[in-house]
Amino acid sequence: MTWKQVISFEPDCKAIEAAKQRIEALAIPPGSLGRLHEIAIKLAGIAATPTPKVNFCRTLVFSADHGVARHNVSAFPASITDINTRLIAQGRATISVLADLLDAKLHVIDVGIDADKYAPEVVRCFAHQFSSCKIRRGTRDMTLESAMTVKEMERAITVGFDLVTDDRDAQILVIGEMGIANTTASSAIVSALLQIPASEVTGPGTGLDRMAVEHKARIVEQAVKRCNIEAPARAALDVLRHVGGLEQAAMVGALIGAAERRIPVILDGFIVCASYLVASKIVSGLDALCFAGTRSPEIGFKHLESHLNLKPILDLNMRLGEGSAALLAYPIIRAAVGHLSSGATLDELGM
Amino acid sequence: MTWKQVISFEPDCKAIEAAKQRIEALAIPPGSLGRLHEIAIKLAGIAATPTPKVNFCRTLVFSADHGVARHNVSAFPASITDINTRLIAQGRATISVLADLLDAKLHVIDVGIDADKYAPEVVRCFAHQFSSCKIRRGTRDMTLESAMTVKEMERAITVGFDLVTDDRDAQILVIGEMGIANTTASSAIVSALLQIPASEVTGPGTGLDRMAVEHKARIVEQAVKRCNIEAPARAALDVLRHVGGLEQAAMVGALIGAAERRIPVILDGFIVCASYLVASKIVSGLDALCFAGTRSPEIGFKHLESHLNLKPILDLNMRLGEGSAALLAYPIIRAAVGHLSSGATLDELGM
Repeated sequence: MTWKQVISFEPDCKAIEAAKQRIEALAIPPGSLGRLHEIAIKLAGIAATPTPKVNFCRTLVFSADHGVARHNVSAFPASITDINTRLIAQGRATISVLADLLDAKLHVIDVGIDADKYAPEVVRCFAHQFSSCKIRRGTRDMTLESAMTVKEMERAITVGFDLVTDDRDAQILVIGEMGIANTTASSAIVSALLQIPASEVTGPGTGLDRMAVEHKARIVEQAVKRCNIEAPARAALDVLRHVGGLEQAAMVGALIGAAERRIPVILDGFIVCASYLVASKIVSGLDALCFAGTRSPEIGFKHLESHLNLKPILDLNMRLGEGSAALLAYPIIRAAVGHLSSGATLDELGM
Repeated sequence: MTWKQVISFEPDCKAIEAAKQRIEALAIPPGSLGRLHEIAIKLAGIAATPTPKVNFCRTLVFSADHGVARHNVSAFPASITDINTRLIAQGRATISVLADLLDAKLHVIDVGIDADKYAPEVVRCFAHQFSSCKIRRGTRDMTLESAMTVKEMERAITVGFDLVTDDRDAQILVIGEMGIANTTASSAIVSALLQIPASEVTGPGTGLDRMAVEHKARIVEQAVKRCNIEAPARAALDVLRHVGGLEQAAMVGALIGAAERRIPVILDGFIVCASYLVASKIVSGLDALCFAGTRSPEIGFKHLESHLNLKPILDLNMRLGEGSAALLAYPIIRAAVGHLSSGATLDELGM
């Protein structure tokens, strides 16, 4: 099975009906758990059983660099991608602390960090699982040429797809990323695919001031202009190749793999959801598989939210990335399912 | 120490400053964890240390009946208070399933269920901690007379206060409740204390239709009218005594006890926040101790939200009570603190 063969995802209607009945039978006032009911029903449709299990949560953090970083579009230098990826794998970054706290397994994947492959003795000391799947040291500068070749992009997609389809344990996935300048790439993806002016989808990322955001928007505009000439049909994969990142291609692959394996996915903020936008144009029905974990304060997110009909579970003004906000939604999803499986029913009470 | 001696709560400013510095020193973009930073700083102020711990979470569920239930103000019969309290203690209700999942200790307290005291052999079989502190079998009908005498109310407050001040383990509390007709009591408290017409603070509770809500609002109006005549000064404790519940008095006591012991509290929805409204009129600065765990869809909640400047952490349309929505906010609060304690700093990275 390759990712190209996966073209749609369909929830299991019988399991959804059974879950609805199970919820109606619970000894609680109808609808009183609000969104927890919706979440539980959706998970039943994904797992094709009225009592799905999400006890094993795998958090995938895809990491790569971006050629466009040379245009000073980030508040941080590109070298931070490497430094922070090591921190994540060492267990010292936000997502690693949260993964330990919230009982999730963390897997960090280098799809294209602009640094030498980490030496085996370095990787051996990592606290968390790490895979080196480096396609190249960062993408090309998207203002001048396509960020990736077709082959590079397809290899990156395959990295994500294989990781997920080979995973025998994960019952739910959190998808996160690390990559300096990847809000710039995401703004370009959203601008190109949804045909929205760059200025409306370009924000401060990790903390640019107003002037710097305007500069960033001009860079996005330039890349999208080039992309529109080269990919007039706006096919999602063309846009991804022209202006996206290697980690974003891998996330697209992971989402397609999750559809193939029927594993629910919790999406992180703007960058992950921009990748989800691409994936949703390739695999139909993907919304039945994915949960928006968090509302991103990044300006472009609201366009994704309305276009993709996202209903973020959390809204805590988090904009760190790494999958950190999405992972915080995991206990809520777990609780929704736990209640469905364990709650007392009216029948049992003789009511 | 009695609850009457606690008149204010003051956060520790030095610890707050130290926590802010610690956050600024973290190797993440400034402000990128959004509300997690606010939460961590607030917890530092409560615990008077820049690295507070909230690993031991105690969930207190106070249970009692309401005389006003005889007016058909709930979609469920009053007997459900007894049935559901047993379910909670047995580990079969929503809050008990969630407490197990989210690693919280559950303590159920009968402050005034309209049933005989549970026999010791029944209590022995409970999966969760249970205390019998029954003041009386339900409050009186607040449309006709005061729901409680001064003595009854003060005894109920003492129950909550003593439970919390005697607790040697809890590092954070979730406060929840069970009591058929206690949204009616809560609407009356809010209407009387904030001087808002009953119709604007009375909602469907566990699921009344429009006609039934109108009837419920008239009952609330009647009780508040009587309360206003008897307590023209609108002193919070007078309002509580006239129209509140025994479980609400106990929650007021628990909040005062938490202020005395500097234990942070996660508040559940409308009923708990109505009790918090009363407590906040007795102990100044209580907002620095309490987190609104959830936005309640109950109509009166929005008045509490604006008056008390609540900023609910979650907004999942939950209206079950029992502390269930508040408990879901616990992992987020725990994550906020965990990151503060464990995250890598710029200094460590030599940056």
